[in-house]
Formats: sequence, structure tokens, C-alpha cells
Amino acid sequence: MHSFIELSKIFEDNFNTRHFPEHTATLYGPAQYILQLGGKRIRPVCVLMGNELFGEIIPDAYHAATAIELFHNFSLIHDDIMDKAPMRRGMETVHQKYGDSTALLAGDVMFVKAYEYLNKIHINNLQKVLHLFNETASGVCEGQQLDMDFEKRETVGLEEYVGMITLKTSVLLAASLKLGAILGGATPNSQNHLYEFGKNLGIAFQVQDDYLDVFGDPDKFGKRVGGDILSNKKTFLLIHAMETANAEQLNLLKGLIENDAVDKIEKVTQIFKDCKVDDWAKELKDKYLQAALQHLEDTAVVSVRKQALMKLAEFLIQRDN
Amino acid sequence: MHSFIELSKIFEDNFNTRHFPEHTATLYGPAQYILQLGGKRIRPVCVLMGNELFGEIIPDAYHAATAIELFHNFSLIHDDIMDKAPMRRGMETVHQKYGDSTALLAGDVMFVKAYEYLNKIHINNLQKVLHLFNETASGVCEGQQLDMDFEKRETVGLEEYVGMITLKTSVLLAASLKLGAILGGATPNSQNHLYEFGKNLGIAFQVQDDYLDVFGDPDKFGKRVGGDILSNKKTFLLIHAMETANAEQLNLLKGLIENDAVDKIEKVTQIFKDCKVDDWAKELKDKYLQAALQHLEDTAVVSVRKQALMKLAEFLIQRDN
Repeated sequence: MHSFIELSKIFEDNFNTRHFPEHTATLYGPAQYILQLGGKRIRPVCVLMGNELFGEIIPDAYHAATAIELFHNFSLIHDDIMDKAPMRRGMETVHQKYGDSTALLAGDVMFVKAYEYLNKIHINNLQKVLHLFNETASGVCEGQQLDMDFEKRETVGLEEYVGMITLKTSVLLAASLKLGAILGGATPNSQNHLYEFGKNLGIAFQVQDDYLDVFGDPDKFGKRVGGDILSNKKTFLLIHAMETANAEQLNLLKGLIENDAVDKIEKVTQIFKDCKVDDWAKELKDKYLQAALQHLEDTAVVSVRKQALMKLAEFLIQRDN
Repeated sequence: MHSFIELSKIFEDNFNTRHFPEHTATLYGPAQYILQLGGKRIRPVCVLMGNELFGEIIPDAYHAATAIELFHNFSLIHDDIMDKAPMRRGMETVHQKYGDSTALLAGDVMFVKAYEYLNKIHINNLQKVLHLFNETASGVCEGQQLDMDFEKRETVGLEEYVGMITLKTSVLLAASLKLGAILGGATPNSQNHLYEFGKNLGIAFQVQDDYLDVFGDPDKFGKRVGGDILSNKKTFLLIHAMETANAEQLNLLKGLIENDAVDKIEKVTQIFKDCKVDDWAKELKDKYLQAALQHLEDTAVVSVRKQALMKLAEFLIQRDN
């Protein structure tokens, strides 16, 4: 059994190679560029952990993990085009550096490469793996579309926001774990529990991310506190505040959203506090974390094997904020 | 044995269904939209013809044909974004109607759907089919990138232009035929001959397309004559003219490219005629057509079975212009 850190190192050594041919350099250079920007490689490591929960890691798990990381980077390239994001991981985004058209194509060709890695998987598992991968990829596209749809709307309900976040970010984490479980020979029941573990963990992580944007320690969080507030991003916090604010608070909140004030962050944060959004968010995060841990508990494996995943949950979700 | 028209009808009846779920409508509506714009369905019918050359059409051939048509439409959606094309088949392009971001995602999700259809193919053929599909998809992306690269360059050699055109348009036709051949149980040798038939036919078609843009009958061609000249598009004709023009003609040509004249089409066409580009193009088209037919000839199948493909070649390439 390996820890997340150990598997992360093993995966990185394996992944740190050239995935594309030299020619056509104007296409494959940009594709290779984003892969070298690094990242935490959480999803591919989850494939390996999902496998190791049930047995020794098989070579196919590396193919699946590589495919997942390539898919993730494909979606980052395309999302950055849509979001017109200039920077990622402290470096220029692909479209910023090479132009929108090349970035679009570099994303496409990275997606193809992901399927080529999947195609190395033994035929006994291939169709099952491909189906899960396809389902997940469609879900991620749906999530991104819903996110864009929600941006244009005045209000979004909590339930539909959870649905969007689940598709946009959680299903890939969940599918990564399940892919590993399939390759590790888990029963369908265990595969599903592990999927639900990942899904709920992903949602808990997003609740935490939204919370930290407002209430986090700027030194630890690594992003500007209040960024979501400034951009009027619909977050767990804003959605709950809109749903629970009284008439006066709601008017104030809508006014702040429509007209930027110099002290917008402070004022919105105060409304959040008045509506007890901070406590609610902590409870919500804990609810999803507990649901995740329950699914891990229900996975039919001796508990000693589950420690790496327990620690991953701890690492992703801090209980004390 | 069926004719192209018969198979086209059979495919269309089969393909004319909803390929995407109702939800998320803002994503799947745009994806479904382009599929309803029609098209000649040449590539998917080539899958069926490739199969029928060697035996009765099996259900998997419809899955492969559907995947090919979905891939083709995915590439059209993304190409139209890159080319900023407002219209396709007399209707608004996806990005024109729904915005760039949704079009980008609708393309992505159509690509996923193509793989989901491939995943229905029997495991005996699945890996081979997926590998060919992936290789082809990468090639098409490379071709599009090279096309964009060439636009920015002053001169392009004939050989590299053929290479680009092969990737951008011919490999998909070739792969469609080969996919059918694989599913029809052809030997590797026959698969490759059929691939080369499609590849050379595709190049011949492109030579003809470039020729007709300048020398075609506007009533028959269906596009504005001289469109490529107006947009300075590097075509077989322009590339050959640049390579064979004398100093005076070359200067004139470069001047016309740099500064649009009101009689640009007439003047460039005259240079083409002076350089005998028209005769050269007809010969080049014929060279590729003959190469294609030779590969079909060399395919180890009784010639009576080859008639549908011979007629397809005749249909695509008119000998008398």
C-alpha cells in the first residue's frame, strides 16, 4: 500500500515523458506545454488508489491514470478559452500563448491521446472503462455548459447548483476512483461505493473552496480572498444567502451585485455573516464529507487498506475551518 | 450489393434519430442542430461500402459509420469556430447561432458520442477500430493546424500542401473505407489498398475542388467562382503558379495577392492560364484518380463487387472538366 504522496511521485515519474510526436510541432508543442505546467495530479493518483484498494496496481491502471490526466488537461485548455483566462498555474494559458484556434485543436488532440491510452487496456475491461470514461466526459461538458448558463441567470437554486458542481468537478474524481476499482477487480457494489465516495468528497471540496474564498486565511488559501464576490460568481455561499436573506438584506445584496462598491467584499461578507452562511457552509461541507466517508466505510475491503483514501479525504478537506 | 445512393438512404434512415439526451438542452440542442443540416454523408456510406466489398454489412458497420459522421460534424463545428464561418449548408453555423463557447462544448460532446458508438463494436475488432479512429482524428487535427500555419506563410511547397490536404480531408475518407474493410473481414493487405484508394481519391477530389473554384461552371459548382482567389487561399493552382511563373508573372501575382484589385479574379485567372495551371491541375487530378483506381484494382476481391466504389469515384471525380 502506498500513500498519496508516494503514488503521486510514481505517477509523475511515469507521466513525465513526451506524449506527442515531434511533428506537427505547432500543434503538439502547445499540447505538451500545458502538461509541463504541473499540477497536483489528484485524479490520476485516485485511479491508482482505487486500484490499490482492491489489489496490486496493474500496468493498465497507469494507462487509465494517464488518460484521466490528459482528459483533465484537455478540459482545462478548452475551459480557459471559454473563460478567457490569461493565466494558469502562474504561467500563460495555452490560448493566451498560442492563440484560440491552436488551443482548441491542442485540446482536441489531447482528448484523442487520452483515448489512445485507454485503448491499451486489456479487452476484458476495455468496454466498461470506455463507457465510464465517455459518460464522465459528457458529464463534464454538461457541467461546464450549466455553469455558463447559470452565469446569465439572476438566481440559481441550491439543488441545481449542486448538480452542476457534481458534473463539472466531482464526477471526474469519482470516475477516476471507480476506474481504478474496475481494474483492481472490485465488485460492482464496491465500485459504486468508491464512486460515491469520490463524488461526495468532490462536492465537499467545492463547498470548502467557496467558503475559503470568503473566510479563508489569504496566506494559506493562495488566492485573493473575495475574488468570487468581486466577480459575482454564484457560489454555495451566495446561493444560500439569496435563499435565506430577509427583504432588506436581499435588496442590499442585489444592489452590491449590480453596482460594484469599493467595499463590496466587506459588505457582502457581512451579509453572509448576518445570514450565518459561514456556519451553514461548514455544516454542508461536513455533511458531504460524512457521506463520502460512509461510502468508503461501506466498501467491502478491510479497513487497513482504506487508510490512504482516508488520508486523502483529510488532506483535501480540513476539518478545522 | 448496394449503390451509393441506396446505402446513403439506408444510412440516413438509421442516422436520422436523436443522438443526445434531452438534458442538458442548452448543450445537446446545439449538437443535434448541426446533424439536422444534412450533408452528403459520403464518409459513413464509405464505411458501409468498405464493409460490403468483402461481405454482408454487419450491424457494427452502422456503429462505425455513425461514429465517423459524428466525428466529421465535430470537426466541422470546431473548424467553423476557427474560420469564423457564419454559414454552413445555407444555415447558421453552430457558433454563430449559439456562441463560441457552446459550440466548442457541443463539438466536444459530439466527439465523446462518436467514441460511445465505437464502443458498441464487438471486442474482436474494437482495439483495431479505435486505433485507426484515433490515428485519423489526430491526423485531421494536424491537417487543420498545418492549414492555419500555411495561411501565415508566403509560400508553401506542393509536397507539403499535399501532405496537409491528405491529413485535413483525405485520411478520414480513407479511414472510413478501411474501417468498413476491417469489419467486413478483409485481409490487412486489402484493408491497406482500400485505404490508399480513399486517400488518393480524396486528394484527386481536392485538386478538382481547387480547379473548379477558378475554372468551374458557376451554375454547376454551387460556390462563387474565384472565392479562393479573393481570399488568397493557398490552393493547388496558386502553389503551382508560384512555382512555375516567370519573374514578371510572379511579381504581378504577388502584387495582386498583397493589394486587392477590382479585377483580381480575372487577372489571377489569366496568370493561371498563362502558366498552364489548368492543364497541369487536370493531369494532377487524373494522376491521383488513377492511383486510387489502381489500389482498388489491387484489392483482392472479384471485380463485380467493386462496381459501387468505381461509381463513387466517378461520382466524386468528373473526368470531363
